[in-house]
Amino acid sequence: MNPPLRFSKLGRQLAAGSGIGELMEDLGRALAEGGDVKMLGGGQPAHIPEIDALWRRRMEEILTSPGCLERVLGNYDPPRGNQRFIEALVGLLRREFGWPIGPEHVAITVGGQTAFFILFNLLAGEMPDGSRRQILLPLMPEYIGYANQGSCEGLFRGMRPRIDRTGEHSFKYGIDFDALEIDESIAAICVSRPTNPSGNVLTDEELSRLSTLAKVHGIPLVIDNAYGAPFPDVIFTGATPLWDEHVILTLSLSKLGLPGTRTGIVIGPPEITAAIAETGSVIGLANPNLGQEIVRPLLESGEILSLARETVRPYYQEKSRAAQGWVREAFADSFDYAVHASEGALFLWLWFPGLPIGSRELYERLKRRGVLVVPGDYFFYGLEEPEGLPHQAGGRADASPGGPWRHRQECLRMTFTMDPASVRAGIAAIADEVRSLSRV
Amino acid sequence: MNPPLRFSKLGRQLAAGSGIGELMEDLGRALAEGGDVKMLGGGQPAHIPEIDALWRRRMEEILTSPGCLERVLGNYDPPRGNQRFIEALVGLLRREFGWPIGPEHVAITVGGQTAFFILFNLLAGEMPDGSRRQILLPLMPEYIGYANQGSCEGLFRGMRPRIDRTGEHSFKYGIDFDALEIDESIAAICVSRPTNPSGNVLTDEELSRLSTLAKVHGIPLVIDNAYGAPFPDVIFTGATPLWDEHVILTLSLSKLGLPGTRTGIVIGPPEITAAIAETGSVIGLANPNLGQEIVRPLLESGEILSLARETVRPYYQEKSRAAQGWVREAFADSFDYAVHASEGALFLWLWFPGLPIGSRELYERLKRRGVLVVPGDYFFYGLEEPEGLPHQAGGRADASPGGPWRHRQECLRMTFTMDPASVRAGIAAIADEVRSLSRV
Repeated sequence: MNPPLRFSKLGRQLAAGSGIGELMEDLGRALAEGGDVKMLGGGQPAHIPEIDALWRRRMEEILTSPGCLERVLGNYDPPRGNQRFIEALVGLLRREFGWPIGPEHVAITVGGQTAFFILFNLLAGEMPDGSRRQILLPLMPEYIGYANQGSCEGLFRGMRPRIDRTGEHSFKYGIDFDALEIDESIAAICVSRPTNPSGNVLTDEELSRLSTLAKVHGIPLVIDNAYGAPFPDVIFTGATPLWDEHVILTLSLSKLGLPGTRTGIVIGPPEITAAIAETGSVIGLANPNLGQEIVRPLLESGEILSLARETVRPYYQEKSRAAQGWVREAFADSFDYAVHASEGALFLWLWFPGLPIGSRELYERLKRRGVLVVPGDYFFYGLEEPEGLPHQAGGRADASPGGPWRHRQECLRMTFTMDPASVRAGIAAIADEVRSLSRV
Repeated sequence: MNPPLRFSKLGRQLAAGSGIGELMEDLGRALAEGGDVKMLGGGQPAHIPEIDALWRRRMEEILTSPGCLERVLGNYDPPRGNQRFIEALVGLLRREFGWPIGPEHVAITVGGQTAFFILFNLLAGEMPDGSRRQILLPLMPEYIGYANQGSCEGLFRGMRPRIDRTGEHSFKYGIDFDALEIDESIAAICVSRPTNPSGNVLTDEELSRLSTLAKVHGIPLVIDNAYGAPFPDVIFTGATPLWDEHVILTLSLSKLGLPGTRTGIVIGPPEITAAIAETGSVIGLANPNLGQEIVRPLLESGEILSLARETVRPYYQEKSRAAQGWVREAFADSFDYAVHASEGALFLWLWFPGLPIGSRELYERLKRRGVLVVPGDYFFYGLEEPEGLPHQAGGRADASPGGPWRHRQECLRMTFTMDPASVRAGIAAIADEVRSLSRV
């Protein structure tokens, strides 16, 4: 067009170009084009044969059950979601965990990502009294997909983690409770569990402390269970699901293997789920039906729980174990590195202390080698420190509070869900690249 | 929770309770509960046997085509949409209309509603320079689903239509071009064609004038083809699809009969479609795949066009004709009424000049009679006049510019897509209710 189009403040904010957009474009293009790209970038779940077979069985049932296909394709559901699906879910959670919830505690969204877009902007940003409130992310690095969801800048306050080196080539993040300050400007606390990207799983004790803090301050605690309990349950350590009156849980069908259906679930205070249903209808009228219809009988029978525990979780745990083995083999002791404790989710989180380039440059170099990963610095946001790369700065990654923090430039996320040959070749390419950099 | 939750300004704006939310809740509840409710409220398309049979055939093909089901359910597509679907659509539009467009002119969204949420807020609202811009809706009444999509108040500037009484019991709206003023504060012009709710179809000449106006002022013209050309083509009068470099067209698979798949399509300047893809990824990561996969071969073969023209359009045209007949029969000459020219879409738009109650009160009374419609006043918004009901005011509906405008309280929208018995019984109930009011 001529003259050039003008975009609003909000439009610029949301369409500004985001990590998640770039990631999805790269991932989608690579998937579509095929070729020999090692796609270790996205959150694409694996095609687990038993799970794909189950979806096929359910689709055949939908096709043979009179009127079912026609309802799924051709009817609008209420914005809150399919009533039978919601009742099945509530029944499961009451039976399994004894949570005192009803259908009024649940709302369905067009995927988990949309649930967060609505939740964050519902609770934080500019308030009616002119003040501003933020979402506290107590354990950075945190999910890349949140970073650009604010309707205004500065929606997130991220906290540096404690970094515990647990072995020569291993480490684990922990919440720095001493540094955690909650005041009037905090609208909610949010964590993903397992954490995307690091694969960290907050301990029951950490979660309980966060919950108490939230309760004391009269704000919600949002727990993103996209990879978590009770399904898909990609958690390799023990972790008890938490529910309380001030807790907002999100679940998703994506990592069970149904990302193409876009089905997210929010369990929370009725005031919240009503607002989500209302906002969902304004933004998108209704939800896609298929994912709910495929999974509903598995909720009713409870099969979804055994499926998650006995099929999905072990499948990814084995994938993680294998990837860690290839990392040890390929990286050897030829440069300094540490792998975050792989306690859940679909990723290894690699740290290269002293990496002489930034993580985006590393990403570009790996892309040229035909390997897609995600540069680590995308996952560090909302931190009160300069975002620039301290190219010349030496020193310990976790040192110098207030100064530039090298650690955020020294990490990358790689997915271990792809076929073993790709994962192994991708790891070998990472090893080659980082080794060549260390030699300079 | 205790204390009560605090919602942000944007949160309040979007979750405030909207016409569309109420409509979808009523519709969904009634659909789920069954019973003897006449559901003449929603935009639920009919289940056309030939169309449902076609979806079934496509689903069977998806199940038997190796790897296809697994891709549809289990893979993320790029945010812009499925590449093959987009290419098939572009091919069709180039072949059929000769539009010089490529894949860069297309973006897929989670239903048409979401396309508008993104478009409106991308273009209008608070601008980077602190000014505010609005979306001009040149022909009210306009789609209820836009009304609450603004991230801030006052996103829309609606224009009163010309009202032409074309017969004793018929009328038609027209754009009042004399009153149309476009200045710097207008970000875009938007029309639905056919218009939801009135069933009005802007003439080619009206559309061409709007397009010229938009072009001259360097702003986009947005045309909502949810019911329009080239598919589902629920247009009973001639109407040529319009494309130009400053035109943004939206299409949807919903009214073809796939609302449960949530598939919207935007065709527009590459700058716009890129921003939509980017914003879509921030809000919702990716689109649902199923609708695109079902329809893609029908785009490639062109079958979708004959399907729309030869099956979908005649089906609804006959439904409209029948409903108009029942209205004439039931309303007789027992009170003053006029039906808007039914030129397209799935609704009759009824006007009761001098109705002694407001349209929401009429809605409630009809609900108590087991008939769901949509009160007309929801479709009048963004007008520069008091919104309250002038209970005591008499006078001509379209008189007194600047004063309270009775017309907006005197209309209702009823869907004619349901089974004939329900539509007929619903119309009889409306007749009874309005007749009883006229007697008072």
